[in-house]
Amino acid sequence: MLTDIKIAQGCKMLDITKIAEKMGIEEDDLELYGKYKAKLSDKLWDKVKTNKDGKLILVTAINPTPAGEGKTTTTVGLGQAMAKIGKNASIALREPSLGPVMGIKGGAAGGGYSQVVPMEDINLHFTGDMHAIAAANNLLSAAIDNHLHQGNSLNIDSRQIIWKRCMDMNDRALRSIIVGLGGKINGFPREDGFNITVASEVMAILCLSSDITDLKNRLGRIIIGYNYSGAPVTAKDLKADGAMALLLKDAIKPNLVQTLEGTPAIMHGGPFANIAHGCNSITATKLALKLSDYVITEAGFGADLGAEKFFDIKCRFAGFKPDAAVLVATIRALKYNGGVSKENLKTENIDALSKGFSNAKKHIENLRMFGIPVIVAINHFDTDTEREIQLVKDKCNALGVEVAFSDVFLKGGEGGIELANKLVKLLDSTASFFAPIYDINLPVKDKVQVIVSRIYGGNNVIYTAAAEKAIAKIEEMGLDKLPVCMAKTQYSLSDNASMLGCPKDFDVTVKEVRISAGAGFIVVLTGDIMTMPGLPKTPAAEKIDIQEDGTIIGLF
Amino acid sequence: MLTDIKIAQGCKMLDITKIAEKMGIEEDDLELYGKYKAKLSDKLWDKVKTNKDGKLILVTAINPTPAGEGKTTTTVGLGQAMAKIGKNASIALREPSLGPVMGIKGGAAGGGYSQVVPMEDINLHFTGDMHAIAAANNLLSAAIDNHLHQGNSLNIDSRQIIWKRCMDMNDRALRSIIVGLGGKINGFPREDGFNITVASEVMAILCLSSDITDLKNRLGRIIIGYNYSGAPVTAKDLKADGAMALLLKDAIKPNLVQTLEGTPAIMHGGPFANIAHGCNSITATKLALKLSDYVITEAGFGADLGAEKFFDIKCRFAGFKPDAAVLVATIRALKYNGGVSKENLKTENIDALSKGFSNAKKHIENLRMFGIPVIVAINHFDTDTEREIQLVKDKCNALGVEVAFSDVFLKGGEGGIELANKLVKLLDSTASFFAPIYDINLPVKDKVQVIVSRIYGGNNVIYTAAAEKAIAKIEEMGLDKLPVCMAKTQYSLSDNASMLGCPKDFDVTVKEVRISAGAGFIVVLTGDIMTMPGLPKTPAAEKIDIQEDGTIIGLF
Repeated sequence: MLTDIKIAQGCKMLDITKIAEKMGIEEDDLELYGKYKAKLSDKLWDKVKTNKDGKLILVTAINPTPAGEGKTTTTVGLGQAMAKIGKNASIALREPSLGPVMGIKGGAAGGGYSQVVPMEDINLHFTGDMHAIAAANNLLSAAIDNHLHQGNSLNIDSRQIIWKRCMDMNDRALRSIIVGLGGKINGFPREDGFNITVASEVMAILCLSSDITDLKNRLGRIIIGYNYSGAPVTAKDLKADGAMALLLKDAIKPNLVQTLEGTPAIMHGGPFANIAHGCNSITATKLALKLSDYVITEAGFGADLGAEKFFDIKCRFAGFKPDAAVLVATIRALKYNGGVSKENLKTENIDALSKGFSNAKKHIENLRMFGIPVIVAINHFDTDTEREIQLVKDKCNALGVEVAFSDVFLKGGEGGIELANKLVKLLDSTASFFAPIYDINLPVKDKVQVIVSRIYGGNNVIYTAAAEKAIAKIEEMGLDKLPVCMAKTQYSLSDNASMLGCPKDFDVTVKEVRISAGAGFIVVLTGDIMTMPGLPKTPAAEKIDIQEDGTIIGLF
Repeated sequence: MLTDIKIAQGCKMLDITKIAEKMGIEEDDLELYGKYKAKLSDKLWDKVKTNKDGKLILVTAINPTPAGEGKTTTTVGLGQAMAKIGKNASIALREPSLGPVMGIKGGAAGGGYSQVVPMEDINLHFTGDMHAIAAANNLLSAAIDNHLHQGNSLNIDSRQIIWKRCMDMNDRALRSIIVGLGGKINGFPREDGFNITVASEVMAILCLSSDITDLKNRLGRIIIGYNYSGAPVTAKDLKADGAMALLLKDAIKPNLVQTLEGTPAIMHGGPFANIAHGCNSITATKLALKLSDYVITEAGFGADLGAEKFFDIKCRFAGFKPDAAVLVATIRALKYNGGVSKENLKTENIDALSKGFSNAKKHIENLRMFGIPVIVAINHFDTDTEREIQLVKDKCNALGVEVAFSDVFLKGGEGGIELANKLVKLLDSTASFFAPIYDINLPVKDKVQVIVSRIYGGNNVIYTAAAEKAIAKIEEMGLDKLPVCMAKTQYSLSDNASMLGCPKDFDVTVKEVRISAGAGFIVVLTGDIMTMPGLPKTPAAEKIDIQEDGTIIGLF
């Protein structure tokens, strides 16, 4: 089998104007970035906003093995399969971050014969959105330090600045730094740090804003820290919101690319799935819905985190009514959830599979709790045995849920036809009664309790003193009537990565609570969340290269 | 008079494909970035490389007042004027840095009716070159700290790391920082700092590279610091050169835009004029020469710095033979050089003008020393009096040099017709006998002495102990056979900003000498050079905004 990059490089891409044509977009509404990438102009929305919405399908997953279970690949493959069965479909995805590309990942735009292209550009600077977000983020940081230096008329308490700088790089040395050293001309020394750009609140804001004015208002509401009286200081107080919005004037426009088989793909925004909500932008999904009969999208991590936040944050803010969910699983991951170690996942193990299916079952129940019709997609590996396959089918049947085996990594859209057909049948036969799982007007702790009890299946929520204090502060500021954004391990339904399957009788500990007043949610952290990754011993960057003739190697 | 941004916004731009057409570039050789910006593809060079070169004209200036004397505006206006008199001309400029746009400047793409457009995009992210350079620079930094963290097999002495991180922002708090705090998982703490992106050696390298392979080789030669034995450690030793080159694969392609009057403008690269050479990229100028009969380009600061480095570094590396130089002066700046204070520049002062003309005279002599025909362009202000104008004309005539009064700020190309006609006459009548002023095989100190004696008009060069040591180290590493890149105040021919006019009997003190082994020059610093600007009390960013309908305000 060829590597991902070889497959991508072998693809005869269509001019992006042709892809746009498939969606009914005229060339005049494209802002081209070379021949194979384009931004969709602001005017396009005005032209299509009265169109009927297409069906919105979320691709989500069970709790995965550390290797991941192919959610993006399934999303891309399903989009391709929908075209194969004659449907007008598009996919809506997050854009990858450069940092991990240079670290471990090497690339992130699907895999095998289900990829989004031009893969190299998408994995490098793409259309510059990440860099624009970093510039806006860092302009605010520069404004903060400049304000301190120039007299601090807002009385900002430099010990209570929570805004960090950011960079799209895996760089552990920037996690905790001291800035402003070197004497008076360099300002006041203080502790600071860098997040990776995708973890910046600016990224979450970009993805949740409906237009440039909403964007600017949200940017203005960012709380950068507190003054000596304990009152919040915002980006608007620093008069940084206008320039930040201007820096994002192009970044807010969705990007159009294509899959290996020419299915339109809107890739836009990529917030972290832990301290943010982990979905592509609302503007991208909104446009896709107006331009396609079926929009296939995904959310980061397993359904306990990704789907919950997609429903309770993104869909709530945007007013989306998702029509169905595809729950991606692998037989390997089900066995892993049944207690098999990573090394032994290739061996048949019916008992472990049976036990581990409890994880899928809980996610199916959860998705139904949101009122969403569900189908299970098994991302097929050649180590899956007949008996294992049959067991999964039987278990799904017993729950009254359809299951399809998907081979999109190896076969592209062709390998997803069964899934596509069953999905269309589900959409045609079963109505969605989507509703968020909690009322945002509940007290913060009640909202968290609903998620822990109903989605995670846990008992009590325990709060550290710091978390209690933070909630009290949020209530004092009148910012408690916002959705909660859970940050939790993706490897378990609980907050303990080692509790696999469908854990019972556990409590969840909330260590920290942060307010993202610009994004418009309350971040509830159940563990230490790393917001700036590091490079491994041998970074992918060491093998990444461009040859004399322009051939790119080392992205995989 | 309208503001620059209002004039720019009122411009009916031509599609960039039409501008390309003027240069004989086919659409297939453009990589479009929206409708009004494009990168020129790699293949274009192969198509045009056997074309005859056009004439290369350098626009440079006398030592300016702190307000600047309109060098870029004259360059743009002259390009427009050449078109008005029926010549096939293009301009080659540096691209502006975002940092100063948010700081004091608000924008930098010419002024009045001689601007490059789309002004807003050019002043914001443009085609992403700056961000790509920052990413390449910072990947190297991440690789350095990761190497220390993962066992330091190269024995890098963390006290002797000279490579800094960078960001395209005016941010004094990042000048001097400590990274790697917070314990073992965050690496080893060490002192570091950020340069503004345009001051990164990566920018200088991009501008001096002939193609992607030359670029990669130069990146590989970057010295990031020294090991415990005192031997240099390079980017290649860290295996970062391939990934850095890949991050620059699009940034190395020149950008095509247009002036307000539709003259083709290639804007590409923008290295600092102090610690680097201050000219647009070699690839941009090379292409422009193949595509136009006349290429108007500029170099940062006055002729003592800008022209000297353009000739001795850029032209030497690229093998360019410049055909003429335009020396921009203002009557205000000549009076300033004659000792008039900034407040009184609007008042007629024949004595001061006469005295200050000595500055122009020295620059004219210097340019002739390089074998280049010279013409003086007086950027006209309405405070210039008849008697002043006549004096400048007489003084120029006495030197046998043509002078033209230029009104391109107010009148666009129309205001530069006299200059354009006289320039063409000069080019037709006077041959260039261009040669660099020193032999790169001379010892470092001899090269510096040539520049100080012949260009600056000084006596001795005094070296600090640190500078002596650095030169010895450069000789020890065998890197002394490179051009020198002088870093000096732009306000005087000497190294003392207060010595105006044509100072005599002065010595120059070299405080520091650095090696830019990747760029391929030795930086000789005669003062403290700020490589990360700060924001002023009221940053331009506070007034920069984007309105609901997309209108941009606050760039000027």
